[in-house]
Parts: sequence; structure tokens; C-alpha cells
Amino acid sequence: MNPPPKSALLSESQMALFADYYELTMAQADINDENNAVCTANYFVRSIPQGNYLIAAGLEQVVHYILNLRFTDADLKWLRDSQMAGDMSDDFANYLRGFKFGGDIYAVPEGTPVFANEPLINITGPTIDVQIFETYLLSVMNFQTLIATKTSRMIRAARGAVCYDFGARRAHGRDAGILAARASFIGGVAGTSLVIAGRYFDIPCVGTIAHKFIQDRPSELEAFRAYAKSFPNNTVLLIDTYDTIQGAKNACLVGKEMETRSYRLRGVRLDSGDLLRLSQEVRSILDSAGLTYVQIFASGDLDEFEIDRLIAQKAPIEGFGIGTRLATGANFNPLTGEGGVSALPGVYKHVERVDEHRVIPTMKFSDELGKSTLPGRKQVYRFHDAHGRYERDVIRLWDEPSQGGEALLTPIVRQGKLVYRFPSVKELQAKATVELSRLPVPHRKLTRGEAFPVTLSPRLEKLRSQLSREGRPVSKN
Amino acid sequence: MNPPPKSALLSESQMALFADYYELTMAQADINDENNAVCTANYFVRSIPQGNYLIAAGLEQVVHYILNLRFTDADLKWLRDSQMAGDMSDDFANYLRGFKFGGDIYAVPEGTPVFANEPLINITGPTIDVQIFETYLLSVMNFQTLIATKTSRMIRAARGAVCYDFGARRAHGRDAGILAARASFIGGVAGTSLVIAGRYFDIPCVGTIAHKFIQDRPSELEAFRAYAKSFPNNTVLLIDTYDTIQGAKNACLVGKEMETRSYRLRGVRLDSGDLLRLSQEVRSILDSAGLTYVQIFASGDLDEFEIDRLIAQKAPIEGFGIGTRLATGANFNPLTGEGGVSALPGVYKHVERVDEHRVIPTMKFSDELGKSTLPGRKQVYRFHDAHGRYERDVIRLWDEPSQGGEALLTPIVRQGKLVYRFPSVKELQAKATVELSRLPVPHRKLTRGEAFPVTLSPRLEKLRSQLSREGRPVSKN
Repeated sequence: MNPPPKSALLSESQMALFADYYELTMAQADINDENNAVCTANYFVRSIPQGNYLIAAGLEQVVHYILNLRFTDADLKWLRDSQMAGDMSDDFANYLRGFKFGGDIYAVPEGTPVFANEPLINITGPTIDVQIFETYLLSVMNFQTLIATKTSRMIRAARGAVCYDFGARRAHGRDAGILAARASFIGGVAGTSLVIAGRYFDIPCVGTIAHKFIQDRPSELEAFRAYAKSFPNNTVLLIDTYDTIQGAKNACLVGKEMETRSYRLRGVRLDSGDLLRLSQEVRSILDSAGLTYVQIFASGDLDEFEIDRLIAQKAPIEGFGIGTRLATGANFNPLTGEGGVSALPGVYKHVERVDEHRVIPTMKFSDELGKSTLPGRKQVYRFHDAHGRYERDVIRLWDEPSQGGEALLTPIVRQGKLVYRFPSVKELQAKATVELSRLPVPHRKLTRGEAFPVTLSPRLEKLRSQLSREGRPVSKN
Repeated sequence: MNPPPKSALLSESQMALFADYYELTMAQADINDENNAVCTANYFVRSIPQGNYLIAAGLEQVVHYILNLRFTDADLKWLRDSQMAGDMSDDFANYLRGFKFGGDIYAVPEGTPVFANEPLINITGPTIDVQIFETYLLSVMNFQTLIATKTSRMIRAARGAVCYDFGARRAHGRDAGILAARASFIGGVAGTSLVIAGRYFDIPCVGTIAHKFIQDRPSELEAFRAYAKSFPNNTVLLIDTYDTIQGAKNACLVGKEMETRSYRLRGVRLDSGDLLRLSQEVRSILDSAGLTYVQIFASGDLDEFEIDRLIAQKAPIEGFGIGTRLATGANFNPLTGEGGVSALPGVYKHVERVDEHRVIPTMKFSDELGKSTLPGRKQVYRFHDAHGRYERDVIRLWDEPSQGGEALLTPIVRQGKLVYRFPSVKELQAKATVELSRLPVPHRKLTRGEAFPVTLSPRLEKLRSQLSREGRPVSKN
């Protein structure tokens, strides 16, 4: 299969204006001030909305966007005509016309379990360059990391039963459907219903039948026969259009007819009702007909908590099709009422600037817990025990000696050049699976448990206190 | 301003495979069966997640997609090579190669308040044509209707204070950011931070400063001065980077300096902390400095409930920048713990087929409340009282005489030809505002109140009972 034509998918060439307005006004003010000194910004997630870990995802799209970001003549003409950034200066127009990212990007590879406040992306470059793609970076990282994490939780809950992404119809538009398919595959689903995601990312496509196909024929039985005739090797019959139990009996009839033609009915799908009770009854109907090999798939408002409940109660379900709560990352625990906002609190913050060759670490202050930032350019080191299990992470300043541990922030782009091979989504899924198995069990629970130990190096801790003590540069002039 | 180049924005020409896998397998089975009889399908929303109404949105993108849907040679080659739909038959390949929607679309215009179970889109055509774009239709209608509705609730809560869309960075990818800007403008925001949405939909762009701009300079005061120098007519200063109260005092200094140059500081923005207390303190600091004209804007984890609380307590806030909970449509009431899934339960269901010139209404049955569907092709009639206020809606079968009321489903496409002028988003915002003012107050509450009366015509009611009584066509063969 050919590599995906990503530029067609993402249309980066027309997306330079996917930017918040203030990125442009700040850039204009920086140009006016002749301020384009080198600075560093970090992407990190302030808190984990559910459970105790995140699976990093989205880097490939972000880096592809940054490296291909160009302002077209049409963009520039529109910016001038609309006076979007005040009267755009010639210097600013020339800056945008010649824009080509020339800085450095270090990042934690996709598929890696990560924790709150760890820098996941570290970008260094001229101050305008580093800022102008912030909105895109945040949107894509926040969304894909949310979905990869959510899916990883569902996979854990399913304890070996397969899960599929059925979410495109409830995803927030086209990109959300496509990126949710990608991120959920990294998180562990076996396939997606969304064909274009299958095409672009080489993910297996899956699907059954819609109610329409059945309503569109004189009877359910005729519809089942029609489908089985067309797809004798891959028929999964949707049995809840009229009455699930009668639907199961019709599926048995068709299954037995397929046997006489030396085919096997693959499965039936439940899409509504009490999935525990119905799966048990349908299993018994199938078994009585000698169709013990026919699998039961279930869909309909599923999430990790519902899957966990069904599996714990030994529902005879071999596969789950997960829609709304996978593709939106619904951060909501129906058991406790916790959560409720389907977004990750990921931010991209300035941590350091260079002023006449002097490196000046900076931080945002806040009285709100978790809203101040860690100053300075940083590296994250992960320590493992003798069995390869994660023991703890330490965040150190960039120029500190490593003192062991695996450095998570990896070189991706150096002086504007890609120096990293992006793994395929299959490789990323394998990586996420292996890495997650190294996270000690207490940190893998569905509910909020013990936080994984992440500490700051003494020097970073000292820098933070020092900046706090020295006061805030509110009026240092 | 030129009309937006929507094809560039949406890239429909490459999006034919934005389809769930089963749309293709069912189409292949229909081709094998030589079943391409005329049928009708309806888009409707099963229940309203928050409050008592929905604002319809998304139609323009859906119709544009349907009318431009083409399968490229590359799409067809990939489908064949990957054996996605089994061995694709020549007939099916030819069908897809020649695909051009030739059916009829009726829809409720965007910006109209609508209610649960009312058909919002009615599509009639050959059965495969009607099905193949289902995934796109659902994704875009569900999302934009969710966001237009959510925003309309925020606008009501703000009681005249202006609201802006600041959500792109937490939106679920690129389309979500762009479509949220569009839908939230229909719902009533005064502008968006997302520049590309401003460009494509002619929405005013707004923005202030990021913390980065302030951290990137020796002091907050210097940063404020730099920004005010570049944008003397439109400066809104972000004052919470280090300390909000000191930030307000610095803003006063800069505001007084601007006065000496005959300019006026437009506003300050609070982005964290106790917004009620801080807005009061900052107002008092500004007023003491004689800067009574400087406005206070607030942002940070806002939704309609928080805005309602702030306005009810008379917080001196003139404008709200709303991010995460606008762009994700967070269906969650933090006061009651209700909700939690950021998606609309909108579905697209088969309601009628034509079998040898006989019109056969169909329905999906379900024992679950609200999961069975209304059979037959239908029209929605809205009745107003003498003052123009909405009184009630009646859903009738398509061929019933109207008996008064305004028919909501409007001709959009006839035999594949667009017969409708899509209003601009400004017209849609005006329409939504006027229409919503006609909905009686009890149905406009933020919390779940009395449902607006929507009844079925006696003939539709009779058809539904009759189909239920006659039993389900599970094995009519």
C-alpha cells in the first residue's frame, strides 16, 4: 500500500490561518519591536481527567503541519484587506511571506504513557516562529492524546475482547472522525468503521449492517439472506431492528443455510437493550442451533465503565463497537459523576527566552493550584526497575547531567529539518501496548488511583522557588 | 469580500470515503440484489441533552458535500486493491464512478429552534444514493447543531454581555475548530479568535494577548507598553500572568499613558482566579484611575452556568471569551451532575420505501423509550399565536393536507439541483435570535423545563400504532 498522501488529507497549504487572532497581532507587535529573539515553549497537560496516565498522540500531524506551514499570497492579501492585524506592516508581510520553520523540536514519541505537567513537546526557535502554530498544535495534541488515552482504558476494560472504533458519526466533524480513528488505533482498537481513515492510515476497516438495509426489504429474514449471499465470508447480522430474540432466530436460520453452502456466519450484533441479558439469551439460541462459532458483537452507548461491567458479569460478548464515547473522548464517569468536559487541559507555554545571549527562564504565576508553569527548558527521565517496570520520572533542566534514566524528549526536528522517522500506526499501537504493560498496575486502574511518582530535580525545584521568591517581573523597568 | 472557497476548505473531492464501511458493503449487496428502489430517510435528534430546544445548524456543509460527492479513480482503485467490500463487482465500481446525487432534499433552515424527534432533513432518492453520505451528514449536523445550541444558551445567560468563541485550541481538530466558529456565530457570539473561520465565513476576529508575549519581555509593564504602541486603537491587556491586581495597576499606567497620546485603552482580560471578586477589584482600580471606559473581559473554563452565576451576582464583566465548553459543546451541568457526553444523539433513519410503485412506510422498533422511529415521509408544521409566539408543532405525513401552520421542511435540492440560497452566517445569527425570541420563556430556560408541545397528526399516530399492531416484518417471507 502506498504511503498516505497526507498533504491531501490535511491540506496544510491552505491552513496557515488556522491560528488564533492574537498569534498574528502579537507577531506584528514583535516585528514592530524588532523582538525575534530565541525562546522555548513547552506543550504539557496540566491534569489527567480520568485515571492516572495519558497516551501521547498527535505528534506526526503537528510536525507535518509546522514543517509545511506557508502563508500564501491569498492569505496575505486577505490579512491586509481585512486589516485583521491592524495595518499590517511591510516587514510583517515579508516575514509571513518567507515563513519557514527553522527551529528545533524535541518530543515524547507517540504511544508513550505520560503524566501531568511533563513537557511532551519542547520547541526552540525565534519567538514568532515558535508561537504562530500554537492553535493547531494544541487542537491536534489535545484531541489525539485524549482519544488514545480513552481508548486505552476501554481496551483494558475489555480484557481481551476486541474493540472497534465506530465513532465517526458522532465525531466533531471530518478531522475529528479521521484523527479519532488514528488515535484510537494507537490506543488499541482492532479496526475502524471509517473507510477514509483505513485508507490514509492503513487501519483495518470493519462494519456490519445498518437498520436501513433491513427496513429496506420486505422482511428481516430476506435482508439477512441478501447480505449473507453477498458477503459469505464476512457476515455479521444486526438483529435488533424489530425484535432481538426473533432476530437471533432468523440469524440462526441464515447461519444454518450458510452451512449447507459450506460457509459460516461470522457473527450477530446487538445495538440496543440490556446487553448483558440479551447477549446471554442470544448465545443460548445460537448454541442450541449448533452455531457455537458465531460471535456476538455489541454496540450502543458503550464506554470503559460499561464494558468493564459487562465483562465482569461474564457477558458472552466477543467484540465491542464503540462510537460516541470513543470519538468524543467523553471524560465522564457515570458511576461517580466525575468529569464532563471532553477535552484535555493541554497548554503550550513559554518557559525560556534568550536576552542578549543570556538565557532567562520564565514562568507563569498563579494562585490557582496547577496553573503556574515549570520554568526553563527541561528533559524528562524515566527510571525502570530490574524487570523493566516504570519506577518514577524525574524532570530536570535541559543542561543538567542525566544521572541515568531514559530521556523521553527525543530529537524530531533540528534547525527546521526532520531528523525522525514517524512510526506507522501499527508500530505505535504495539509500542503503546508494551509500554503500558510496564506501568505498575495501581497506576493503570480505570478510576483515580495513586499518582505515578514524577519529581523535579533539585536544580529545577530551586529555580522554581527562586523565581517565586524573587518576585514577579510585573514592573521591572 | 469574496465568497468563501468552500471546496478548498472542505476538500469534498477527496472526501468520498468519509463513510462508514457498512455504507459500502450494503451498497454492494444492494447492487448484487438489483435493489435501488426509491426510499426516504430522515435526520432527527432523539433527545435534547440540555435545556428544551435545539438550534439547527450544519445544513450548508452537508448539502455542499452531497452535491459534490464524487468517487475518484484513486478511491476506486484503492477499494478494489484492498478488497474492502469483498470482491467489488464491476457494476458496483461503475455505480460509484458515475455517482452524482439526483434525489430531493427538504430541510429545516439553519438557525431554526427545533425539538426532539422532529425530522430536520428529509432525503428521497435511490436507496444507495440516500445512504452513502450518512456518516458525513451525521457528523456535521450533530456537531454544528450541538454547538449552535450550546452557544445560544451562553448568550442567554450573558444577558447582553458579549460572548466570543475562543475554542479552537480545545476543539477536536481542524474542522471542529472551524465549524465551531461557524455554529457558535449562528448561536450568537460576536466573533471568533480563529482567523481562518473569520476568513472563510466572514466572522469578525477577536483576540487579546497571550501570557507568552508578557513572559517574552523583561517586565509586564514593558510588554503592555509594546502592545499598546502597536495597537493603539484595539488594546486589551491580559493582566493575570504574574499577579492580577498588580497587572490591573500596570494596565492603568499604560491606559493613562495612552490618554496623553489621545488614545484609549480598550480593555483588560482576566483569565484565571475568582472572576467575580477579581472583576470587582479590577473595576474599582480602573475607576479610581479615571479609566471608567476601560472594559473588563473574562475567560477561563466558562460555560452558561458560570456566566449565569457571574451576571446574576453583578460581576462588572462586559465580555466573555469562551473556549473549551463552547468548542466541545460540553453537555454537562456542573450544578446537577447531569449530562457528560459532548455529542448530540442525532440519527439518520429509513422511514419509507417504494416497492413496485407501492409506498411502504417503515420504522425501527425498540423496547427502549425513544429508540423507535416515526414511520413515513413527514412534514413539520409550526403554529404561532396572535403575537407571533410559537404555540405548538404538529408532525404530519407528507401527503396530508396542511391544516395551517408554517411548514418547516423547505425544498433545498430537487432532482439533484440546488433550489435554495444558503443565507450568510450573519443572516443565520439574526434569524436564530428572532426565532428564539418567539419561543415562550418557559422553554428557553437553561435547565430542563416544560417540553415544547410537539404532537403527531391523527393519521401519523394511527400509522404508527398500526405498524406496531401488525407486528414486525421479522420473517414476512
